[in-house]
Amino acid sequence: MAELRKDPILGRWVIIATERTKRPGSYHVEKDAAETDPAQCPFCLGHEDMTPPEIFAIREGRSQPNKSGWKVRVVPNKYPALGIDAPLKKWGIGMFDAMTGFGAHEVIIETPDHRREAKDQSIDEITTWLYVLQNRVRDLHNDNRFRYILVFKNKGQAAGASLSHPHHQIIGTPVTVKRVKEELDGAMDYFKLKERCVFCDIMKEETEKGERIVYENDAFIAFCPYASRFPFETWILPKQHCIDFYDNRISEKIRSLADILKVTLQKLSKALDNPEYNYIIHTAPNKFPRQGYWQTIEDDFHWHIELLPRLVKTAGFEWGSGFYINPTPPEEAAKFMRESKV
Amino acid sequence: MAELRKDPILGRWVIIATERTKRPGSYHVEKDAAETDPAQCPFCLGHEDMTPPEIFAIREGRSQPNKSGWKVRVVPNKYPALGIDAPLKKWGIGMFDAMTGFGAHEVIIETPDHRREAKDQSIDEITTWLYVLQNRVRDLHNDNRFRYILVFKNKGQAAGASLSHPHHQIIGTPVTVKRVKEELDGAMDYFKLKERCVFCDIMKEETEKGERIVYENDAFIAFCPYASRFPFETWILPKQHCIDFYDNRISEKIRSLADILKVTLQKLSKALDNPEYNYIIHTAPNKFPRQGYWQTIEDDFHWHIELLPRLVKTAGFEWGSGFYINPTPPEEAAKFMRESKV
Repeated sequence: MAELRKDPILGRWVIIATERTKRPGSYHVEKDAAETDPAQCPFCLGHEDMTPPEIFAIREGRSQPNKSGWKVRVVPNKYPALGIDAPLKKWGIGMFDAMTGFGAHEVIIETPDHRREAKDQSIDEITTWLYVLQNRVRDLHNDNRFRYILVFKNKGQAAGASLSHPHHQIIGTPVTVKRVKEELDGAMDYFKLKERCVFCDIMKEETEKGERIVYENDAFIAFCPYASRFPFETWILPKQHCIDFYDNRISEKIRSLADILKVTLQKLSKALDNPEYNYIIHTAPNKFPRQGYWQTIEDDFHWHIELLPRLVKTAGFEWGSGFYINPTPPEEAAKFMRESKV
Repeated sequence: MAELRKDPILGRWVIIATERTKRPGSYHVEKDAAETDPAQCPFCLGHEDMTPPEIFAIREGRSQPNKSGWKVRVVPNKYPALGIDAPLKKWGIGMFDAMTGFGAHEVIIETPDHRREAKDQSIDEITTWLYVLQNRVRDLHNDNRFRYILVFKNKGQAAGASLSHPHHQIIGTPVTVKRVKEELDGAMDYFKLKERCVFCDIMKEETEKGERIVYENDAFIAFCPYASRFPFETWILPKQHCIDFYDNRISEKIRSLADILKVTLQKLSKALDNPEYNYIIHTAPNKFPRQGYWQTIEDDFHWHIELLPRLVKTAGFEWGSGFYINPTPPEEAAKFMRESKV
């Protein structure tokens, strides 16, 4: 299937395809991939047999699994980055560390409608797939082989989406991904120093200043972070301290989450003429009892969404250096979105 | 000019433009930027007055500064990310940390010929601009206000190049950029454990295995790293342990460096039909006497080049998660390039 490999200098794990790998010639195709045709789209209504059998679905009336009549549908990724049937094994090769490509890779099809983007969906529709996302993360968290459950959305080709039909992806990994580990470590260090959650402190500061706020409602706040890497980068946080995306307190406020997500995406679309974007849900890792490292995680972490519009092209340099140049101050980006009427 | 801002969770510094910032509407232009017209190109011969006055140049005979007759030309970036005239000041704003946008941003024009890509240049030509790069890094290292000197090349629009005329860029920063700091920390940790340089150990392992080697000559080796993030990612290392790119031992072997760079770029071009790419020279940071942190750096770091072809589009997700999915195993990529006759 695939193999996980660890960089011996940075400790970063990567997934390396080992079967059906991409040959050099095949990279051209990706460059020229076009908008998916609904007639060929495996996520469209009536094409249920084009995907692996469904894991879960919200269905109307008495409709049958893997048939039409669904509202939200969860299927295994047909070309998974990691495989749920792989055994979980680790080994060394000389000085290097490897692991089997065990993991989960699911696709959450938001709507049967090929062109109904998240920003155009109703609060009811968004609420429904948010519930489904919560359920999938909760379910995968019950499997102790997973260290982290990554929920993300790629919208548009430049953002890495190979199918344009609106969908999210979930990848469950047997290691904690580097960026998440750094965030957990950073939040823990801050807590050690201050005995406060760094995200709660940031929210307080942003609320007092106001200049980087994009939108807020009763339970959530959206703002452009002070040290935004990218123009119009926007974070969405629950106002109440909470480490898990699927916490019951979030489920109770799920319509508010749907509201802030819809409004933020609408404002972004209006400000930047429907740009391509990625967002990633940063929820807490799978927790293991008494492992020292996670002892204070209930206090120091705070789940949130990081929304990254794809506007600038300097990625390779940034990948290589970790150094970002943002041509639009977050104060201006926030003002622009705040004032965009949607 | 600009402002440096620190992310309070990750400690990552970013550059935020604060003057002449990009308005939302202006992002469309970047999407559709075309191949630069030589008649309008500020890097072409006879257009010397289209750049700020030159910092350095290799000139033929008695040609005058800022006139024609040059072979390699170094000029300040006309739209610098950081400014050399800014004072170096640090301050806090509430819980956040900021710094003035002090720094250097130079452009090294490799050749007067608009379309003469690095891979097509002679060993003499490449050797000449490699000397110039060495000199610029050495010169900037004499200024203690800089913590790090970043040398990189963006080739192609998707790689972030706004002008197609062959050039490198240098950014001198008053902070150590995150990716470099992680690498230094990782190398230091390895040295503490093993009392050996991790890069030297990797080279030994790669040489013994051979399967990921792309090319080698008397002084340098090019291979696809074991945990490659990207298809056809290639690293070039000096065989002799050496922390600075501008070390005299490198200057003595500079033709070998020109050779391996040319051959590697030719093999990459042949394998992937002239792809866009970035490469970054990872040299040691500016060193300060007795600062504890750098005590063992002479032993534990090893300068190198990281070459990242731009073939896959999944950047936003990777940015957000730090998790990479590489569809081509480095063994296959290396074999393909090794066997490409150039």
